[in-house]
Amino acid sequence: MNLEEITDKIRSFRDERDWSQFHNPKDMAIAISLEAGELLEHFLWKNPEEVEERIVERRGEIQSEIADIAIYLTELADNLGIDLLKAMEEKIRVNAEKYPAERVRGSSKKYTEYGEASE
Amino acid sequence: MNLEEITDKIRSFRDERDWSQFHNPKDMAIAISLEAGELLEHFLWKNPEEVEERIVERRGEIQSEIADIAIYLTELADNLGIDLLKAMEEKIRVNAEKYPAERVRGSSKKYTEYGEASE
Amino acid sequence: MNLEEITDKIRSFRDERDWSQFHNPKDMAIAISLEAGELLEHFLWKNPEEVEERIVERRGEIQSEIADIAIYLTELADNLGIDLLKAMEEKIRVNAEKYPAERVRGSSKKYTEYGEASE
Amino acid sequence: MNLEEITDKIRSFRDERDWSQFHNPKDMAIAISLEAGELLEHFLWKNPEEVEERIVERRGEIQSEIADIAIYLTELADNLGIDLLKAMEEKIRVNAEKYPAERVRGSSKKYTEYGEASE
Repeated sequence: MNLEEITDKIRSFRDERDWSQFHNPKDMAIAISLEAGELLEHFLWKNPEEVEERIVERRGEIQSEIADIAIYLTELADNLGIDLLKAMEEKIRVNAEKYPAERVRGSSKKYTEYGEASE
Repeated sequence: MNLEEITDKIRSFRDERDWSQFHNPKDMAIAISLEAGELLEHFLWKNPEEVEERIVERRGEIQSEIADIAIYLTELADNLGIDLLKAMEEKIRVNAEKYPAERVRGSSKKYTEYGEASE
Repeated sequence: MNLEEITDKIRSFRDERDWSQFHNPKDMAIAISLEAGELLEHFLWKNPEEVEERIVERRGEIQSEIADIAIYLTELADNLGIDLLKAMEEKIRVNAEKYPAERVRGSSKKYTEYGEASE
Repeated sequence: MNLEEITDKIRSFRDERDWSQFHNPKDMAIAISLEAGELLEHFLWKNPEEVEERIVERRGEIQSEIADIAIYLTELADNLGIDLLKAMEEKIRVNAEKYPAERVRGSSKKYTEYGEASE
């Protein structure tokens, strides 16, 4: 099943429940943010080894949180008429120009300097 | 380009920069959460009409935030050996059982009762 | 009881459990973000009237989420040697200069333009 | 200056700008979540030593993010008629019963088991 078919399934799921009335862009963005928090919560207070243990022990739940984010994100993109795969491809191209490999390679400092989420 | 090809591009982008050392699951989950916040920020303090205006005026930026979330999420799933499309399909099936259409249709109350992000 | 006395109580609570080893700044910031998500979740999918109803029906829980954020934030400030009340006072002064009342008064547009969280 | 006086200042700041029309509980909760993200962003991709360096190098900004969260949180509590200090004191008491020191002391496992943000 490809992303287009998944998107069809998401639309059907929503429309069979008449939930599009609640799925305005602002609440969808809130939902994505909350689901991202549920994923992150698995790793709270944990050092790298404990994170790895958590991933083994709670694999199903973590996969489910990742799927929740992906489902809301796919629906939001679809609602806004955005082709998600094209948007990703375009963004990878933009990032490749913004962070030339030879300039930022392997350096935490450079990574930090150039690669912050806010930039 | 399909999601598998995009995933290859994401891997190449990261490895050309030797950034996998920073992309542990905890920081990836933080990054996803922060990018989700950047998307949500577009709608802060805005009523439904203002949200629609924002979407028109800042379409490119909003698309770019959505792509950022999708890129980190795709990489995290790949790093964890999770097939993202299968995980989405599986979760849609679970949700369909959890929220039977005939029970939850069109009711904000029922939606709220059954459909909260934490459940 | 004032904020200084509350801060003492937070320190005692943590130290009696020997939890300061987990309370590094990064995890504290994650915890604050997750607690903020739990507060926000109360209002997901809700229009203004439903938000008001929720506040009446779940007052205790909402108060408890607000307290959780405040407790982690107070401890983090204390751990970093930041006087939280002074920091707030200082920030209000900075904001007052940044957003002169006569320029931004009552205008959603101006508010949005000048008052975004990212600025 | 105590928290009550700070709360007065926050109210005046808002009312001089006629901004209470935007400060509904849902948007206030979004704003708190976004400010928490801005704090967390300082520590993204950083190991413990790099976090400590960041705290030294960006002390003013980090203090400012903490103040932003505290200001919105204080205003929201005030708007909802919640006494923030009493709410904190009450929550510390509840937590003390929920996590008895002798049971959870110093154990990451126990801490995790009993101390997750969602519980």
